[in-house]
Amino acid sequence: MASEEPVEVVTCTAPVNIAVIKYWGKRDEELILPINSSLSVTLHQDQLKTTTTAAISRDFTEDRIWLNGREEDVGQPRLQACLREIRRLARKRRSDGHEDPLPLSLSYKVHVASVNNFPTAAGLASSAAGYACLAYTLARVYGVESDLSEVARRGSGSACRSLYGGFVEWQMGQRADGKDSVARQVAPESHWPELRVLILVVSTERKPTGSTAGMQTSVETSALLRFRAEALVPARMAEMSRCVRERDFQAFGQLTMKDSNQFHATCLDTFPPISYLSDTSRRVIRLVHCFNAHHGRTKAGAGPGRPGPGAGRAGASRSPLLWGLQLPLARVLVAYTFDAGANAVIFTLDDTVAEFVAAVRHSFPPELNGDKFLKGLPVEPVPLSDELKAALGADPTPGGIKYIIATQVGPGPQVLDDPGAHLLGPDGLPKPAA
Amino acid sequence: MASEEPVEVVTCTAPVNIAVIKYWGKRDEELILPINSSLSVTLHQDQLKTTTTAAISRDFTEDRIWLNGREEDVGQPRLQACLREIRRLARKRRSDGHEDPLPLSLSYKVHVASVNNFPTAAGLASSAAGYACLAYTLARVYGVESDLSEVARRGSGSACRSLYGGFVEWQMGQRADGKDSVARQVAPESHWPELRVLILVVSTERKPTGSTAGMQTSVETSALLRFRAEALVPARMAEMSRCVRERDFQAFGQLTMKDSNQFHATCLDTFPPISYLSDTSRRVIRLVHCFNAHHGRTKAGAGPGRPGPGAGRAGASRSPLLWGLQLPLARVLVAYTFDAGANAVIFTLDDTVAEFVAAVRHSFPPELNGDKFLKGLPVEPVPLSDELKAALGADPTPGGIKYIIATQVGPGPQVLDDPGAHLLGPDGLPKPAA
Repeated sequence: MASEEPVEVVTCTAPVNIAVIKYWGKRDEELILPINSSLSVTLHQDQLKTTTTAAISRDFTEDRIWLNGREEDVGQPRLQACLREIRRLARKRRSDGHEDPLPLSLSYKVHVASVNNFPTAAGLASSAAGYACLAYTLARVYGVESDLSEVARRGSGSACRSLYGGFVEWQMGQRADGKDSVARQVAPESHWPELRVLILVVSTERKPTGSTAGMQTSVETSALLRFRAEALVPARMAEMSRCVRERDFQAFGQLTMKDSNQFHATCLDTFPPISYLSDTSRRVIRLVHCFNAHHGRTKAGAGPGRPGPGAGRAGASRSPLLWGLQLPLARVLVAYTFDAGANAVIFTLDDTVAEFVAAVRHSFPPELNGDKFLKGLPVEPVPLSDELKAALGADPTPGGIKYIIATQVGPGPQVLDDPGAHLLGPDGLPKPAA
Repeated sequence: MASEEPVEVVTCTAPVNIAVIKYWGKRDEELILPINSSLSVTLHQDQLKTTTTAAISRDFTEDRIWLNGREEDVGQPRLQACLREIRRLARKRRSDGHEDPLPLSLSYKVHVASVNNFPTAAGLASSAAGYACLAYTLARVYGVESDLSEVARRGSGSACRSLYGGFVEWQMGQRADGKDSVARQVAPESHWPELRVLILVVSTERKPTGSTAGMQTSVETSALLRFRAEALVPARMAEMSRCVRERDFQAFGQLTMKDSNQFHATCLDTFPPISYLSDTSRRVIRLVHCFNAHHGRTKAGAGPGRPGPGAGRAGASRSPLLWGLQLPLARVLVAYTFDAGANAVIFTLDDTVAEFVAAVRHSFPPELNGDKFLKGLPVEPVPLSDELKAALGADPTPGGIKYIIATQVGPGPQVLDDPGAHLLGPDGLPKPAA
């Protein structure tokens, strides 16, 4: 079959993103149009990325795809929707009079190979990075230069947010055809260099409810979700954009936590109820609030983080309750968010990372099986104060956190120029794993 | 001090109630006026009750109160509010020209003794029964015959619902002075004789957030709670009243579960979040949905329960998801509800009790410490089918449920005529425990 060189071969990488204003629920299942806008942070590809190679050749007799080395069914509807959409855009470009460097390529079949540099089993929603990378790579193979939101979105809604680096909003749009349901960069990755991201990979027993089925049931049964989408998210989007633009970590962190909690509240309001938070997730929530409250108490609003413009808002006078704990409404040094799974994603600033990682180690003593507990960016070990240890309580959960990935905000998809990076060989088939 | 007989001594009992449309949040903290109406089922006093004796005497020099044999501070604001309110009603009655059998009694001090026939530590919100019993007993001592909603409500909001037997609604009212925020019976205890109630007392590690502080934080921080109270509860109240009137267990059970889930969703939407459901609570939720789904599958809509008029609504065609399980939207044979604590309250019909108790025993193998696992109404042991065992899964949690109290719908407060029932002796002090 593969007697000649592929006509065109391109390899790209794309990042994972984590939403701080959550997407949950579609208004159109086919076009994957959301019931509300969402906003996410693009994570750095040094730690988490998908790499995808696409090749087209007159010799290929059918479209084929390999994910993490295993051939998958290319006929699955979402993959087909992406392929159809990219070819439609390529045809449109040609009919618009652009010169086409590859006059025959539209009729060629495509081979695609894709790998993640992180274990799929870790539950780090790989589909967003995967479909963003697919859209970006196919666009380069087919010479498409228009907005790729729709191509990526048809694979997985949140994938359109992985098309950009930094801080990205997915505008829900109003049109029935979805043409205005697109991702836009709010700020580039260079905008907030102190921001750090810790992924706390949680040991889970059960595979959680798939997000596609889960959000469909939520849309059908949760009145709170509809209210959230229509009445609450628009103001939250505006406020989150402001937090990012002004690098207001206080307000950014508080809204991030509130929006995560509200998303999981709508899951609980679904019938039958959906629960993505595990016991360990809840212990992380408690840890974060304890950590913040401790610093609110001991540092009286002058903790190690840089106070943003909104720092004065969170007074320490009130005493809300959390799981029976009396907590002052603390300064926010650390914030959590959870997607449709048990893993916690933590936002903090560079000068708080070391102490918080020490607090995680204290609360979840690592059970090391030759695996490193801390991956990614280096974090220097620091001792915990006795006061903080006391504040965290004496109820450690050994092994509750499998490992931590320390990372930061990162850029959008990249084209790899090195031919050695291609995942497909000259025969159009996956190279043997090195 | 107690040289003479008390002038008047009365002993009454009052029931516990469990809300099926939940009360959470006050619009007036002082008057205890709720942000939404609620509806509850009064539980039978054969299993759970508060007994209260009140005595007034010219010899008493101060108001005093003993709870479960221990003297408590009579100066606490809610107790004072109840005493003030009942004396106000007594004065009003006298000034309205009613003849007063006890012309001096209004100036007399009162002694009160109150006991529960269930352990306070079991977390079975005893304050509702306690304040209902206090209001009812004081009313008889002071010769008050008007509506006692306000007296009980000033002690604990949900206490006004324990003033009646059967099915009771607490109408939120509109007036600023709370005069129209009253409890009313929807149907008497004789209305639905097949209904059974199982209280699954859960072993908890932590004392949960107190409901007074919890609901205050929710009102201040949860937009979902405000929306629920204003936009969703009115229709749910009407629907729940219909379910009760028509004895539609399908719809009653489904709405009971949905309303419990929505209440806990608003707790999660509170900031910082509040979590009353423990791991065992979530396992009970799962068990109930599995049990219903199993019967939905195997009995195709003709399970052992009596189909109500709404039985046709819950088709088994759709496949919502719960904790990763594919479940047909089942017939409802069993329904759960959770208050501000981890204990599950289960509603079912008499012919399903035995099989469900067997399922609970299977999923939560009892750790007996000389204590009976099943208390209250007798339940005959039945074997579980292998199919049901398989449906419940092989993940039992030994000791997760401490014990079950089997009970049913019961009557409102009662006056005890037997002088031997008095908790206070002729000297106005608590009798020594028998």
